[in-house]
Amino acid sequence: MKLLVINPNISTDVTALIDTEARRSAGTVTELIVRTAGHGVEYIETRFESLIAAGAVAEIIAEYCAAPVEGDDPAADRIDGVVVAAFGDPGMPALKELADVPVIGITEAALCAAALQGQRFSIIAISDRITAWYRDCVEHFGLGSRLASIRSINQSLKGIGTVQQDFKETLLALSRQAVAEDGADVVILAGAPLAGLARELEGQIPVPVVDGISAGIRMAEAVVALQSGFHRQGAFAPPPVKRRQGLSENLDAALAAIQSAASATGTPAVVSAGK
Amino acid sequence: MKLLVINPNISTDVTALIDTEARRSAGTVTELIVRTAGHGVEYIETRFESLIAAGAVAEIIAEYCAAPVEGDDPAADRIDGVVVAAFGDPGMPALKELADVPVIGITEAALCAAALQGQRFSIIAISDRITAWYRDCVEHFGLGSRLASIRSINQSLKGIGTVQQDFKETLLALSRQAVAEDGADVVILAGAPLAGLARELEGQIPVPVVDGISAGIRMAEAVVALQSGFHRQGAFAPPPVKRRQGLSENLDAALAAIQSAASATGTPAVVSAGK
Amino acid sequence: MKLLVINPNISTDVTALIDTEARRSAGTVTELIVRTAGHGVEYIETRFESLIAAGAVAEIIAEYCAAPVEGDDPAADRIDGVVVAAFGDPGMPALKELADVPVIGITEAALCAAALQGQRFSIIAISDRITAWYRDCVEHFGLGSRLASIRSINQSLKGIGTVQQDFKETLLALSRQAVAEDGADVVILAGAPLAGLARELEGQIPVPVVDGISAGIRMAEAVVALQSGFHRQGAFAPPPVKRRQGLSENLDAALAAIQSAASATGTPAVVSAGK
Amino acid sequence: MKLLVINPNISTDVTALIDTEARRSAGTVTELIVRTAGHGVEYIETRFESLIAAGAVAEIIAEYCAAPVEGDDPAADRIDGVVVAAFGDPGMPALKELADVPVIGITEAALCAAALQGQRFSIIAISDRITAWYRDCVEHFGLGSRLASIRSINQSLKGIGTVQQDFKETLLALSRQAVAEDGADVVILAGAPLAGLARELEGQIPVPVVDGISAGIRMAEAVVALQSGFHRQGAFAPPPVKRRQGLSENLDAALAAIQSAASATGTPAVVSAGK
Amino acid sequence: MKLLVINPNISTDVTALIDTEARRSAGTVTELIVRTAGHGVEYIETRFESLIAAGAVAEIIAEYCAAPVEGDDPAADRIDGVVVAAFGDPGMPALKELADVPVIGITEAALCAAALQGQRFSIIAISDRITAWYRDCVEHFGLGSRLASIRSINQSLKGIGTVQQDFKETLLALSRQAVAEDGADVVILAGAPLAGLARELEGQIPVPVVDGISAGIRMAEAVVALQSGFHRQGAFAPPPVKRRQGLSENLDAALAAIQSAASATGTPAVVSAGK
Amino acid sequence: MKLLVINPNISTDVTALIDTEARRSAGTVTELIVRTAGHGVEYIETRFESLIAAGAVAEIIAEYCAAPVEGDDPAADRIDGVVVAAFGDPGMPALKELADVPVIGITEAALCAAALQGQRFSIIAISDRITAWYRDCVEHFGLGSRLASIRSINQSLKGIGTVQQDFKETLLALSRQAVAEDGADVVILAGAPLAGLARELEGQIPVPVVDGISAGIRMAEAVVALQSGFHRQGAFAPPPVKRRQGLSENLDAALAAIQSAASATGTPAVVSAGK
Repeated sequence: MKLLVINPNISTDVTALIDTEARRSAGTVTELIVRTAGHGVEYIETRFESLIAAGAVAEIIAEYCAAPVEGDDPAADRIDGVVVAAFGDPGMPALKELADVPVIGITEAALCAAALQGQRFSIIAISDRITAWYRDCVEHFGLGSRLASIRSINQSLKGIGTVQQDFKETLLALSRQAVAEDGADVVILAGAPLAGLARELEGQIPVPVVDGISAGIRMAEAVVALQSGFHRQGAFAPPPVKRRQGLSENLDAALAAIQSAASATGTPAVVSAGK
Repeated sequence: MKLLVINPNISTDVTALIDTEARRSAGTVTELIVRTAGHGVEYIETRFESLIAAGAVAEIIAEYCAAPVEGDDPAADRIDGVVVAAFGDPGMPALKELADVPVIGITEAALCAAALQGQRFSIIAISDRITAWYRDCVEHFGLGSRLASIRSINQSLKGIGTVQQDFKETLLALSRQAVAEDGADVVILAGAPLAGLARELEGQIPVPVVDGISAGIRMAEAVVALQSGFHRQGAFAPPPVKRRQGLSENLDAALAAIQSAASATGTPAVVSAGK
Repeated sequence: MKLLVINPNISTDVTALIDTEARRSAGTVTELIVRTAGHGVEYIETRFESLIAAGAVAEIIAEYCAAPVEGDDPAADRIDGVVVAAFGDPGMPALKELADVPVIGITEAALCAAALQGQRFSIIAISDRITAWYRDCVEHFGLGSRLASIRSINQSLKGIGTVQQDFKETLLALSRQAVAEDGADVVILAGAPLAGLARELEGQIPVPVVDGISAGIRMAEAVVALQSGFHRQGAFAPPPVKRRQGLSENLDAALAAIQSAASATGTPAVVSAGK
Repeated sequence: MKLLVINPNISTDVTALIDTEARRSAGTVTELIVRTAGHGVEYIETRFESLIAAGAVAEIIAEYCAAPVEGDDPAADRIDGVVVAAFGDPGMPALKELADVPVIGITEAALCAAALQGQRFSIIAISDRITAWYRDCVEHFGLGSRLASIRSINQSLKGIGTVQQDFKETLLALSRQAVAEDGADVVILAGAPLAGLARELEGQIPVPVVDGISAGIRMAEAVVALQSGFHRQGAFAPPPVKRRQGLSENLDAALAAIQSAASATGTPAVVSAGK
Repeated sequence: MKLLVINPNISTDVTALIDTEARRSAGTVTELIVRTAGHGVEYIETRFESLIAAGAVAEIIAEYCAAPVEGDDPAADRIDGVVVAAFGDPGMPALKELADVPVIGITEAALCAAALQGQRFSIIAISDRITAWYRDCVEHFGLGSRLASIRSINQSLKGIGTVQQDFKETLLALSRQAVAEDGADVVILAGAPLAGLARELEGQIPVPVVDGISAGIRMAEAVVALQSGFHRQGAFAPPPVKRRQGLSENLDAALAAIQSAASATGTPAVVSAGK
Repeated sequence: MKLLVINPNISTDVTALIDTEARRSAGTVTELIVRTAGHGVEYIETRFESLIAAGAVAEIIAEYCAAPVEGDDPAADRIDGVVVAAFGDPGMPALKELADVPVIGITEAALCAAALQGQRFSIIAISDRITAWYRDCVEHFGLGSRLASIRSINQSLKGIGTVQQDFKETLLALSRQAVAEDGADVVILAGAPLAGLARELEGQIPVPVVDGISAGIRMAEAVVALQSGFHRQGAFAPPPVKRRQGLSENLDAALAAIQSAASATGTPAVVSAGK
């Protein structure tokens, strides 16, 4: 199984953290391709920064999906799934339309991993500003009723690559407060900059702790393994064929490829209920 | 008052429909600048197409906001508000971070116009595929409990610029069904391609009918007139200053301009509650 | 455009505040008629006081709607919309049935104005007791999920006409706390007694601030301008003709007038779906 | 135990139906006073009609509560609870502020009786127009998630006093459809005009059937018997003392009486949390 | 009327508290049979303990329902309703399938009693651990939107039978805080170990106070008196006849008895809507 | 990794279906122990049958967890996770308290697998009666807002072990209707009796199809692999030590073992926030 793991921000030290934790988490048969956004910001804290990041992630997915879905393409480049490795899930769920393989955000993966282990969960975040965007993400996924709290570091960061070391005690304290004061059954250490911290804090937080990157990898492996099939119809089918203009070469090719794949399956169109 | 009205798709015939209805709707003191997306698709039906459109809309907003917020810029180019003129509100609410003036989508405007006139509303849409994205939009705005139904044309379109003429009888029938069968107190004729149709159907639908473009213009005028002030803090304040890479010149300049405007106000930072 | 603005409490000094702010807010082509409730209480804090106020507001609306909707009535008395100028929206949405023009409460108007400018909003209120009623109002409108908090003055009032001067510092502090501690993107200064305060605090609260009266006027202007049409069917159509007894002369006449207007339109009855 | 049962509409034949069913339902120690609204409409179908009815019900409650709460009043006139006997609960929950005894609507009573017997319930109503108001009522009570459906008679009524006889077969069919098609675990026969019908249909509907009037009487008896105490603080305490004008003599006296009762208890004011 | 009241935990001193309060609360014509769980734990604080308790309660219900529903059974043993006397309602609503008479939990009864007296209520609980289970229960009943707070004793208990005496001051303080800080209109003293405390605190809490046991008895009396009928179809009809294995003799017999009763009524099966 | 897979009903032909599909789904390093409930019913359709099943599942989990958590126990019997293999998740989430390893229901697993692949999902079920229980399950998990529909076979079953063969065409038709009429982005073939059918229908349903058993296995593998840690505090910590009576030997031992494991970790108790 080959997973494409995309860091939606431009910080290569964050990509390194993602890479390390992703490799520790992955199953033995999983091959990982880890990529960094080609444009964007140092780290993503706001809804607008997330929108910019979504565009950058789309370009990378398109690069891998632009080739014909079936045919003479060497298997070497064929990916089986995509992990979008920023908490807040930039571009989700829209990006699921762009590939005929599962595209999974680390937030939705972490929410599932948490929801399978307890009733209510808290999210520990690296900045106050980031929390509004995270809250949107949880609510849009539909699990807002299970969110115990979002707690966040309330100080300036020294560097995005060292957050987890610079604020380890703070992050531990926030996690424990989430359990003791907010009723969290599970704690999610959110964000790629915290990748791997859950391992380090093992045993120091009295409830299960979920690492976003690990959850993203393991949940993507699980979903890919299920081989549930492709969206040929419905809201996640490839966008309908129509006039396009000004898209990148990769995006254009990826859209053409997936539209072709969907129509090639020959399933007769279902008749919509009309409401 | 000067409003920038952006058509997020690339179809200039749709821009023409928007332009006509916007000018009929606007107050006498309102000046309109109507623009078409520089890249994207013929019309927007899916979450992914909306994501692409959001990027194109951001570029146009940035073009107008890239100039210094205060200073030697001639007033001629200074806009007072932005209307994003596609139902489904591509890029909302993220785009509100990018300008120090109100940025308003026609969906959120139409939802407010409907909610002020009745309890439950229905949306009439131009294609079945579009409805999932519209539903997301209503739910994210928070008014999902007031949505009576979304009804849509269940046939191939002949051309996006002629939808309202080609399917007038169908659209009228769907509207009446929404009242009679779904309990709609108000009907929203959704989407820029239907701009102006509400005027034509006047008196033929037995409840108030809201045109998305008209609602967008009138609600933007109202909000601009309120002069409620600028987001210097909170989730819609300008994105924090940080390293960026690969953005367009306009986006870079617009972010710099708004960040500068926010910091110039000198409001002492509020202390966050930390959860 | 002629708007009837009704103060649902009996305090003429509050009516004066409403009148001043309404005139400052209104567009140049808007004519205002400002009236005070004929019976009721000094200011409205509870659900029961709101019920009493609703009855008083109905009488004033009826006074203006009792004349034949179409006919020989001089245009001078014909109103184009109604603003119910007490936060908590006494009698809404029921009062929308009583007129063939938009009837809009300042709370629903302020909620829309806030929701178009941010994701979550807080309401600043003049007494603790009042908050339960306000919360009902936000939830019934459907935007409860976007309410960050309601904060209120926790001291006895000296006089309802001077609240905004007597407690300016408190109201400013509550507003800033709502931003810093509750995550408000927008602050609503609620209640007619606070009319105009938002202008005075301009620049002192780091997010957009919405004044209820201003929002009521501007949103009513916008909705009236949309000319969406009349409820001839559905839940806001005029109450069906039936035996009545003991209503005031104006109410009786207003009901007769609107029932006549609805039946005069001759739209064939829609067939209900039956569930 | 003495219960005041109020018919909020002006139809004495409906009052007779209420009276008959209430007496059949009441416990042996319950004494009933049944009254008809002094003003209003023949039967209540809309939000506005409900608002008018609420005012009429308030007058009757005030008549019984205007006497001093404790003192020389002969016990003969002292009521122990009030039942507002129209489905849709006109004036609720506001009317609970007006008396120091439980004031209970037949809808809230029926919803509780249904919710204690099954998970989801359907409401059978006498007209299509009435359903929007009923739905509001269920949602405001908080049990909207348990509402399977509202089904209604879709024909003109011959007379409000004979609905249950004129449409018995229709009402039975609607009830059975609610079970078979909507998943109702319990059926509520809504509205005073249907009082007593549940007894007649016994055994013909394959799930428990709740009569609004019976539920109102039995639930009021239960709550009165609990002697839970009086609202001296919080959102249902008597409205604060303040200037009033133009209220009826009874309302004025009732407000004075309950305000006096609340202050007489001498409980020290609680300190509010301020948000 | 004969009510079976079941203490789902194994503590006979708690059964004694239940018995005493139940007898004080019951109407004069109500006969009570009070039973203690045959297996389980000292008191129930967790979801798993509640599951164990549910099994024990089922056995006792089955013991009384195992006899033929109609026939030669002496009336002496025929019960008219069941009260499950642990807050959190172990086994609800599943246990409603097991009997052809109402089976009512004290939580759902208390929630109804509270919801009929105010808008928002708080629950006062005997341990922090217990609150998650209580919250589930309120949310599953559908009234989560009306829950102001759950406050709980944060200390080790000396003995389950003496909680209300050992912590009377704490419980009073928590109740008052719920009113003053959480906006509770009604306070529920939760849990059988607190049975009767509400009477003792009469007048010391400034809002209505609901005792779980009293509410359970009075609400059960009310529902039984309504004689709404039996679930022969729908989600609470007796479980369909099928192969069973390893159930207790009583459970086997009770299932057989109720299945027989349902089929004996001869109602033709309704046709399901299929979705 | 060793997973204990429990069939909560007593049908060994269903266990065989589970066993076959579980083995096809499991990763190469996963070892499976598949067990059948020791008591219960042929298949589970109702809330009460699910309660009975929960007890039977608890007994099997206890059997494997009764041994000391750490110590001299041979690794051979040590399980790493539990899969409860009936749709509707009998005993969840309570059973998570009973083991110090993840205990996962196939419904919650399938819901996560579906939610990661689309926005809205439908559930295809084997009987009408079963749908109410399934709906509870989805709503309690928190994803009710993403449920497009539950569609079910509306005919008598010939045998539980042959449902998927007997009704293959019906199940396929229901699945396609869910896509075409209900807006399902993903279809869940619910229930152990349908285990493996998704593989057979591959390519015949135009959206991803999730098999409950496969999802249960893969999601359990993912969560076990995350090694998130043990609940030593919070709502899923082991039930507090207290007097017990009448439990099975295994349950008694399992509770003792997990309580001992929790206390052995020596984490200082967190201080609860008290509300």
